[in-house]
Amino acid sequence: MKSFSDRLMDAIDAKENPSCVGLDPRFDSMPQYLREQCRRKYGETFEAVAECFLEFNKAIIDAIRDEVVAVKPQMAFYEAYGAPGVNAFKETADYAKKHDLLVIEDAKRGDIGETAKAYSDGHIGKVKSWRGMKECFDVDAITVNPYLGFDGIKPFVEDSMQYGKGAFVLVKTSNPSSGQLQDTPIILEHPSLPELQRRFGDQSRLRLSELKELIDAADETVIAPNYVRTASFVDDWGEVCRGVRGYSSIGAVVGATYPEEARTLRKLMPSTYFLAPGYGVQGGNAADAAACFNTDGYGAIVSSSRAIMYAYRDETGGNICPEEEFDVAAKAAAIAMKEDLVSVLRQSDKCPW
Amino acid sequence: MKSFSDRLMDAIDAKENPSCVGLDPRFDSMPQYLREQCRRKYGETFEAVAECFLEFNKAIIDAIRDEVVAVKPQMAFYEAYGAPGVNAFKETADYAKKHDLLVIEDAKRGDIGETAKAYSDGHIGKVKSWRGMKECFDVDAITVNPYLGFDGIKPFVEDSMQYGKGAFVLVKTSNPSSGQLQDTPIILEHPSLPELQRRFGDQSRLRLSELKELIDAADETVIAPNYVRTASFVDDWGEVCRGVRGYSSIGAVVGATYPEEARTLRKLMPSTYFLAPGYGVQGGNAADAAACFNTDGYGAIVSSSRAIMYAYRDETGGNICPEEEFDVAAKAAAIAMKEDLVSVLRQSDKCPW
Repeated sequence: MKSFSDRLMDAIDAKENPSCVGLDPRFDSMPQYLREQCRRKYGETFEAVAECFLEFNKAIIDAIRDEVVAVKPQMAFYEAYGAPGVNAFKETADYAKKHDLLVIEDAKRGDIGETAKAYSDGHIGKVKSWRGMKECFDVDAITVNPYLGFDGIKPFVEDSMQYGKGAFVLVKTSNPSSGQLQDTPIILEHPSLPELQRRFGDQSRLRLSELKELIDAADETVIAPNYVRTASFVDDWGEVCRGVRGYSSIGAVVGATYPEEARTLRKLMPSTYFLAPGYGVQGGNAADAAACFNTDGYGAIVSSSRAIMYAYRDETGGNICPEEEFDVAAKAAAIAMKEDLVSVLRQSDKCPW
Repeated sequence: MKSFSDRLMDAIDAKENPSCVGLDPRFDSMPQYLREQCRRKYGETFEAVAECFLEFNKAIIDAIRDEVVAVKPQMAFYEAYGAPGVNAFKETADYAKKHDLLVIEDAKRGDIGETAKAYSDGHIGKVKSWRGMKECFDVDAITVNPYLGFDGIKPFVEDSMQYGKGAFVLVKTSNPSSGQLQDTPIILEHPSLPELQRRFGDQSRLRLSELKELIDAADETVIAPNYVRTASFVDDWGEVCRGVRGYSSIGAVVGATYPEEARTLRKLMPSTYFLAPGYGVQGGNAADAAACFNTDGYGAIVSSSRAIMYAYRDETGGNICPEEEFDVAAKAAAIAMKEDLVSVLRQSDKCPW
């Protein structure tokens, strides 16, 4: 079975475009005529909201399917409307797959043991039912959170191997406060890390001076930002999921808004595919995103959501074009993004085509 | 409006029981007769699985409603079956609330900006629709993940204040690999942390010896396990959500399986309510869980899932009692857990009743 990383890279080659489009539907941003159409059909219900999201997504998918390799629906916006919203998510994913797009679900799930397995089974694997195992969401890949350690990641690694799927683990996220936990300087290496950890006992903190005989003797003590440690875990966890093209199906989320950190992480995780959100509305540009790519021109898929989906509106919510042409505007924005990225990759000699 | 923390504490007083029951339905663990009943009604479909989960949960809720203060449904097990599963989750939550139980949703959500807001709106707040704002899941509290920093927590804090709801932030989780990211020794305090962070530049790691002039001069450098830093954030984030009884509605998840860490965290976060999973099947006992309580006898709600829900079965999946009496067995297990906890709290002079 072809690995997710190979499927992703083949799709990127076929379309000569390493980008994907986020599908983050918001009630407020839906075209008026579409909202009205769904209201007439389903009343003022969550079912109508969900139908509106689905119809909107289908039109976007029709418009961009020949341009980009994947869609990245953000589960939060669907599940906010309960079961009808989740159903619209599932139908969106099915529609995208039917039209030869990969589906990268942005869900940032993270739990432990059997619970992590339930998430993995439901989203990329198979769940138990009367006739053995059956797919539920069946997306191609999903984003996951590393805070609980490997217990939370293991089922995704196993399902990725078994079903040719993938996962992207949060390493350095694109948001302003990502540094609070991710950038903290940590003691990455120490000749006796367990001894160092034991020293805390029931104390929550120790002055470095109280650790002098442990730390001073240790010329090998290495300090690093916390995301470096997460990166080393992800690199390690993904080792068993390498595809024939050399990249692992266990990727990393690395925000296009932090190019310096992206360059560091790129060197640390040469075989890890990066999902790079933050291009567009969040402030990342193509040059920033280019830091996520390897010198072979692969290793990253750049994502943009609002700037593509809502290209028909300006920042104040006014319409730039007739709202019925939201899909045409999205297609133009997706093409512009592709050209922007490819041109920057060409300039830095990283374009494979 | 009464804060979530006050509602929780009042309920704990009324029932003289600081424990809650996890509702983690698994297809394999459902009683045969119930599975068969649902199969006959809905065929071999996910709707039938969802109906089975709901009927099972309702019977458990009927059995334990006078004993415990809250249920903690784990969303993973429901969403694994798509929209029907999510619907069963919603109906379970509604049924529990109608029977005077608080609902603490275990979902461990974590995202950024508008996406985090969509999660919060959908689960504890209100979402936009035609007639203004409307509740969707409307649970009392939800578990959330801190890896993305305050961007991911802010909407939950705001909705908690606005709607009398709450959130429990993962700090030290109950699972074996929780230490991988949570226990790492970090530099918690340094006279110039920004300068220290800048020194990394485009390097991913530095030997302590290369930082000698920065670190050696700094007698104030303080080292701590990573969960201590998360704890200080949670304490800070929850400050605005204090109820009249002194505790914040922004709580912390602290596993009952790590009593030493729990004691440390208890001292660091005196006003934070702990949700303590891990009692029962995961190996935590009442004495371990007692470490999560303050000397006033409050400050923690202990959770058990499998040991209560599936008390009718032994470890090998054989039935201990007729499977039709699974609810009776669950009630007995919930009472035993209550007595176990209260007795240990009494022994350590921490029992408020």
